Amino acid sequence: MIKVGIVGGTGYTGVELLRILAGHPDADVRCITSRSEAGMAVADLYPNLRGHFDLAFSEPDLDTLTACDLVFFATPHGVAMRMVPELMARGIRVVDLSADFRIKDLKVWADWYGMPHETPEWAAKAVYGLPEVARDAIRAAQLVANPGCYPTAVQLGFLPLLENDLVDTSRLIADAKSGASGAGRQANIGMLHGEIGESFKAYGASGHRHLPEIRQGLANAASGADIGVTFVPHLLPMIRGIEATLYAELRNPADFDRLQSLYEERFADEPFVDVMPFGSHPETRSVRGANACRMALHRQPGSNMVIVSSVIDNLVKGAAGQAVQNMNIMFGIDETLGLAAPALLP
Amino acid sequence: MIKVGIVGGTGYTGVELLRILAGHPDADVRCITSRSEAGMAVADLYPNLRGHFDLAFSEPDLDTLTACDLVFFATPHGVAMRMVPELMARGIRVVDLSADFRIKDLKVWADWYGMPHETPEWAAKAVYGLPEVARDAIRAAQLVANPGCYPTAVQLGFLPLLENDLVDTSRLIADAKSGASGAGRQANIGMLHGEIGESFKAYGASGHRHLPEIRQGLANAASGADIGVTFVPHLLPMIRGIEATLYAELRNPADFDRLQSLYEERFADEPFVDVMPFGSHPETRSVRGANACRMALHRQPGSNMVIVSSVIDNLVKGAAGQAVQNMNIMFGIDETLGLAAPALLP
Amino acid sequence: MIKVGIVGGTGYTGVELLRILAGHPDADVRCITSRSEAGMAVADLYPNLRGHFDLAFSEPDLDTLTACDLVFFATPHGVAMRMVPELMARGIRVVDLSADFRIKDLKVWADWYGMPHETPEWAAKAVYGLPEVARDAIRAAQLVANPGCYPTAVQLGFLPLLENDLVDTSRLIADAKSGASGAGRQANIGMLHGEIGESFKAYGASGHRHLPEIRQGLANAASGADIGVTFVPHLLPMIRGIEATLYAELRNPADFDRLQSLYEERFADEPFVDVMPFGSHPETRSVRGANACRMALHRQPGSNMVIVSSVIDNLVKGAAGQAVQNMNIMFGIDETLGLAAPALLP
Amino acid sequence: MIKVGIVGGTGYTGVELLRILAGHPDADVRCITSRSEAGMAVADLYPNLRGHFDLAFSEPDLDTLTACDLVFFATPHGVAMRMVPELMARGIRVVDLSADFRIKDLKVWADWYGMPHETPEWAAKAVYGLPEVARDAIRAAQLVANPGCYPTAVQLGFLPLLENDLVDTSRLIADAKSGASGAGRQANIGMLHGEIGESFKAYGASGHRHLPEIRQGLANAASGADIGVTFVPHLLPMIRGIEATLYAELRNPADFDRLQSLYEERFADEPFVDVMPFGSHPETRSVRGANACRMALHRQPGSNMVIVSSVIDNLVKGAAGQAVQNMNIMFGIDETLGLAAPALLP
Repeated sequence: MIKVGIVGGTGYTGVELLRILAGHPDADVRCITSRSEAGMAVADLYPNLRGHFDLAFSEPDLDTLTACDLVFFATPHGVAMRMVPELMARGIRVVDLSADFRIKDLKVWADWYGMPHETPEWAAKAVYGLPEVARDAIRAAQLVANPGCYPTAVQLGFLPLLENDLVDTSRLIADAKSGASGAGRQANIGMLHGEIGESFKAYGASGHRHLPEIRQGLANAASGADIGVTFVPHLLPMIRGIEATLYAELRNPADFDRLQSLYEERFADEPFVDVMPFGSHPETRSVRGANACRMALHRQPGSNMVIVSSVIDNLVKGAAGQAVQNMNIMFGIDETLGLAAPALLP
Repeated sequence: MIKVGIVGGTGYTGVELLRILAGHPDADVRCITSRSEAGMAVADLYPNLRGHFDLAFSEPDLDTLTACDLVFFATPHGVAMRMVPELMARGIRVVDLSADFRIKDLKVWADWYGMPHETPEWAAKAVYGLPEVARDAIRAAQLVANPGCYPTAVQLGFLPLLENDLVDTSRLIADAKSGASGAGRQANIGMLHGEIGESFKAYGASGHRHLPEIRQGLANAASGADIGVTFVPHLLPMIRGIEATLYAELRNPADFDRLQSLYEERFADEPFVDVMPFGSHPETRSVRGANACRMALHRQPGSNMVIVSSVIDNLVKGAAGQAVQNMNIMFGIDETLGLAAPALLP
Repeated sequence: MIKVGIVGGTGYTGVELLRILAGHPDADVRCITSRSEAGMAVADLYPNLRGHFDLAFSEPDLDTLTACDLVFFATPHGVAMRMVPELMARGIRVVDLSADFRIKDLKVWADWYGMPHETPEWAAKAVYGLPEVARDAIRAAQLVANPGCYPTAVQLGFLPLLENDLVDTSRLIADAKSGASGAGRQANIGMLHGEIGESFKAYGASGHRHLPEIRQGLANAASGADIGVTFVPHLLPMIRGIEATLYAELRNPADFDRLQSLYEERFADEPFVDVMPFGSHPETRSVRGANACRMALHRQPGSNMVIVSSVIDNLVKGAAGQAVQNMNIMFGIDETLGLAAPALLP
Repeated sequence: MIKVGIVGGTGYTGVELLRILAGHPDADVRCITSRSEAGMAVADLYPNLRGHFDLAFSEPDLDTLTACDLVFFATPHGVAMRMVPELMARGIRVVDLSADFRIKDLKVWADWYGMPHETPEWAAKAVYGLPEVARDAIRAAQLVANPGCYPTAVQLGFLPLLENDLVDTSRLIADAKSGASGAGRQANIGMLHGEIGESFKAYGASGHRHLPEIRQGLANAASGADIGVTFVPHLLPMIRGIEATLYAELRNPADFDRLQSLYEERFADEPFVDVMPFGSHPETRSVRGANACRMALHRQPGSNMVIVSSVIDNLVKGAAGQAVQNMNIMFGIDETLGLAAPALLP
């Protein structure tokens, strides 16, 4: 039984970790911390957990955390960065769902997150936890940086193209759309139902924090080739789900014929990536609540442009589910434990 | 392993049965029938089931069905009524999710459903499958009539009041609201997103088919007392969830003091009924995807009116989940098998 | 041209006043105040107003306000109460969209709003601005208390029953449902899209501030008869619209035959009340953006219960539209000016 | 007073024409036809029009239509094509909201719409009614082909770039998202609320009928240059609104500095195009119900990619509103008549 702690559990990622871990046979949640809600029963904040957890939020406390085998951080950026060294020193393993350890170039990190990185040695050692790319490193890691939601959908969709050097990497485009839960559970007028319902818009179109993370991941997949990628996120009037429509120009149009099998082979052994038939249109609801990425390829008549549509649930494969998948890998247990349920549709 | 067949599997109740049974350790879905989609893979119609079921829809076929231990009917009314006798004759057990066997007074049934009942002997034998009321009878039953969605939410909410003869049964009111999935998956202009989104209305306010079912259930709970109940359903601009706000006049205002403990005791051993603290406001999302009914009591200053707010997921505790709960009871296995996952929130 | 000022214009009621007044031929908005957004262009906060208003929010300033003919208050309760006396003294007319002057019994007001009333003399003089009840008094009033959203839908729906003494007034029930814009535009976790979307719940079921306002209005309609009314509001996962389902027991069942014509006659000359055919189901979208209340009557077989379904747009007939209607009446101009556009459907 | 007829009025475009024309001082709707609903009062189908129109749907009848000055076609493709010649012969002017006369290359039209064009002479004479491009020709036209919804948003957003030859026209990308009303009001399982709500997907990604219309429009703007454009539409879980995010590579990065003023100048005299400040994020709700296109420009650090976000209401500037704008131009009256109201926000 893996003893699990969660730091920063009042947000949507926190409740989603609990929901998933409630059905995990080998994990036991020992503590969940929140400064603002310390003392409150988890089930009082999240009534869907009534009858499933007897836990209350507690003040973050090193002794309690170090009694765990694994600690998930579901905190704003800047928190894990500071707490990780002590946990590392005591041999605790960590999956950080925040952005603190995702970017290797700490100057870039500092620019986008507006603060200097305080634990560069751990930033260097952290493994970027995209299992489909780094499973072995994750298995061995003490500290895993859980990928961002958009970066997960975008990287998985582009991977086979870049790994096989098939497209012009200087002009990639990722037009991505996310449900409102991606913005977290903060008091924020801009995320009120009255502001978001029945409306749609781009945001962060001049530059979003997930851009450098995407660029780094795509560069790795392309063996370090220069990446020119334009990433525009949009806000959907719904709660869960990301769809990313990806555009890449095929260098050799003849390669179109083998793309589908290339994608299918690339992900054939991946339990959580589903390549749908060519020309399909993945729906976000087909992954709602599930740790899955579904994708499909398209080509328009007379065009060299590969179009990939990739969908995930931003709170699951884009956050808590992938974090549990990483935990499973780190502890050498069946990677699908706790993650096998089908999506909730309709 | 219980061998399960599903008749009429293309609707929302059908896909929900599959979603739940995918995680049921003791059930094996052997066939799922659909005249209109015979030959189509289940996962092509419902992509959330990709990787979970290899089944295709088949023509309804008696031989296949009679190789099952249990058959669920997820058909429009009038279908199960005709097919049940042959299954009964061969010893197959049936949970009918349609309305065919819910009403004991067949004249009432005929009036509301617009056709004569063709198998009155089975209508008489069928057990109305509300586990919280009829668990023992369900266990012994060969044919279970799975309750309607509204009747489940309304009956559970009123039960303790009626069983203890605390309220004026001549003027009960159930103001109920349902998500759009309750209307099924039919080509119907009135259920288009463009017609339903961002709008709300009552429907069936002059009389809805669930009214006689509610009246029968409440009369049974009240030991046959005359029931005057007004039931108005409404259509919510969302997919899943029913909330019923119930109004009943307490005969003796002093009884208010013991209502909460009465409710808690009545449902103390029920795995799927959750009485929240007095004055709570159950949210439909707290039961989304879960086989749960949550309820709470309210009183307004100076008033004798008991107010109960009761929520369920209409596709789960209001249909497929309750059907699986009934199957579990009928086969003497743990009643919560396949039904233990928390609701999906947010 | 009526010179108009708006105090507290950053909320949904403020922008709705501007939207309506943009098309009003006889009104000229001279100032709109906001402490928090002073200096910001109105169109920067509300881009739908780009090209329609050149105004910026200004600090509330008595000189500017007293240069107006009419001032609308779209403020939280407690603000108008304090500012009104000076405006009254200088002869300015006021329509207060807050609750400050709605309740005549100031002890009741203080209990529900948690503060003593500071200007009881104006509370006594204020006219409750439901035009269908008090048109003449509104015409003559200097200070009009614009009714609350729920009380508008509920009172209009009950009026003919009470005015004609047809029902048991001791057990009236109003089960009401509102879109999220009714809660205003405040940073509030509970009103996030992630909290409200795809969910439904009752709130304030143990007592909501609109209850005493409803009770007062119904008592007046019933010539002071004792009113026992249960009012339960609910929160809809949509932005605009209120539906109230009203229940009242007819004293004499024979009266059912004349109810429809009674309702039609009562509102025959009302430009903004639409009695639909018996058995209709008014949809909130049929009044979206329009200053209209649509209602319909229902009866269930064998029941004495009159059921009325009444819909309004909470921001229009439930707030800003009714306020403009009151302005039109107060200034003796065509009551429908600025308010004639049909609802936006779909 | 312009005598107006509407052919095919039961869909969303039909009701939207009526909603707009209800407030048009110079237009008088004389007839609205529908084969399926002939005899039904318009206000019975669309209750928002109760009190605004006394019309009933009628069988399409040439005599009635030829008594009009202008006929709008709001029909599926293939209908206007056949009826237009007779109307033209009698001097009636027509605005066709369907696709029949939008494409000049009739082989292309036939390929995408699956039938041969039956009136090529009128296809040649028809004026493509995008006022911002062809106002003079519209004024003189007898037959105007009203642009499609996506093509309107996409063309307006790209226009200044193409007219000034600033971008690589071989690799334009238009990633567009539409509310569900764009699919019309047909009984279609795929457009049920239960299928569309809380979900998002691309559709037509391998080729959508609006692609050739977009390509033709962009080629015209680029003075006939070869256009390579990838167009992917997506379905939003909401009713009204299109957002198109457009990507084009600037030939000369230095041109970025003058883009904003170029856009502002291009549309300075356009009453219905609003260029927002550089870096803004137009929301679809800011144009809900309004005949407006709002757009904004973006640039990401170190990139040559121009990003344009362009929003319209698909039923207004994308259909009925633009049709009325065209009518106003054709009849030489104020282009903004009936179209001046601000959008409905929230």
